Amino acid sequence: MPTNIFPDRDKFLERPAKEALLKQKGLVIWFTGLSASGKSTLAFALERKLYSEGFLTQVLDGDKIRNGLNNNLGFTADDRNENIRRIAEVGRLFSDCGVVALSAFISPTQAIRRMARSIIGEANFFEIFVSTPLSICEERDPKGLYKKARQGVIQNFTGISAPYEAPQNASLVVDTTQYTVEEATQKIYTAVIKKIRASE
Amino acid sequence: MPTNIFPDRDKFLERPAKEALLKQKGLVIWFTGLSASGKSTLAFALERKLYSEGFLTQVLDGDKIRNGLNNNLGFTADDRNENIRRIAEVGRLFSDCGVVALSAFISPTQAIRRMARSIIGEANFFEIFVSTPLSICEERDPKGLYKKARQGVIQNFTGISAPYEAPQNASLVVDTTQYTVEEATQKIYTAVIKKIRASE
Repeated sequence: MPTNIFPDRDKFLERPAKEALLKQKGLVIWFTGLSASGKSTLAFALERKLYSEGFLTQVLDGDKIRNGLNNNLGFTADDRNENIRRIAEVGRLFSDCGVVALSAFISPTQAIRRMARSIIGEANFFEIFVSTPLSICEERDPKGLYKKARQGVIQNFTGISAPYEAPQNASLVVDTTQYTVEEATQKIYTAVIKKIRASE
Repeated sequence: MPTNIFPDRDKFLERPAKEALLKQKGLVIWFTGLSASGKSTLAFALERKLYSEGFLTQVLDGDKIRNGLNNNLGFTADDRNENIRRIAEVGRLFSDCGVVALSAFISPTQAIRRMARSIIGEANFFEIFVSTPLSICEERDPKGLYKKARQGVIQNFTGISAPYEAPQNASLVVDTTQYTVEEATQKIYTAVIKKIRASE
């Protein structure tokens, strides 16, 4: 009977091997900002830009995560915390695989972002504050959520009835009222590409 | 002010684009079997084999998931269900990204595997039953878990005090008492490679 069936830690394929295969470095790019600030739009635009350069990415956003992994979570404080915790863990799995994860969630408090940073690891975490002002986000209101929040139909809505704590130490700040999507994407690309490109 | 900041679904980068970049197709290879049957060992051996051929994979196993994403779950029936549900959702995210996910969890019941298959999607789900007999798994007992289960120190232990329902429709069955790790890995490789290799 073969005796060599037990896991051998020495034989695990480590992250650098996968990064070498992909010719890129894993990273989690963490977009934070108000609802309708442009987080998902910028994440998807950045994904396309990186793809055109041959880099593999994975966007984690509300549509993808709230309908799948986190479909059993609501919007209580505990559930929001658990929502971000799971997303951070998934981001870590992707970056461990050499993939660039692009996370686009409000993640409104210092504490919640500190947790994400701690799970993902400082060296793997690139925080982008999408600083579009509340008045503009409320004007956009693509899903009518701000309207419902003002009417009290939605409770604890970030920016209206729940706080948004602006990051103090974001790696990059982007106000989408100042740029076209293309300009903002280029700005982000320039900031992150050094962390993604494999060393020569 | 730019007006084109809202998400445009038409601009999302779809799975085929990522598969083209990776020159492979995404898949979830789902190993099921008793504790110490050899699931993780085979998953890691398959990962190395696939890597040597230039394919990108991600192993999801207990060490990685129970210490991270699912570190807030225990071993009640509900928690085991939620454990597998989250793993299936994460497997789906990886296969959506064109990556081959290798999941190695006991996943003891037909119902729990049916859930995983349904989340991941029939076409993306390749089930491997690691059918090593209980007597051999118990003999191996690398972590002393069977001993503790026999003593009643661990409750609801699959194969001892909780049922393991053998799959009826696994894509492949591997009994590790019949093969070396290398042989078993080759057997699995031959069975899965057609689903992973990009069409010519």
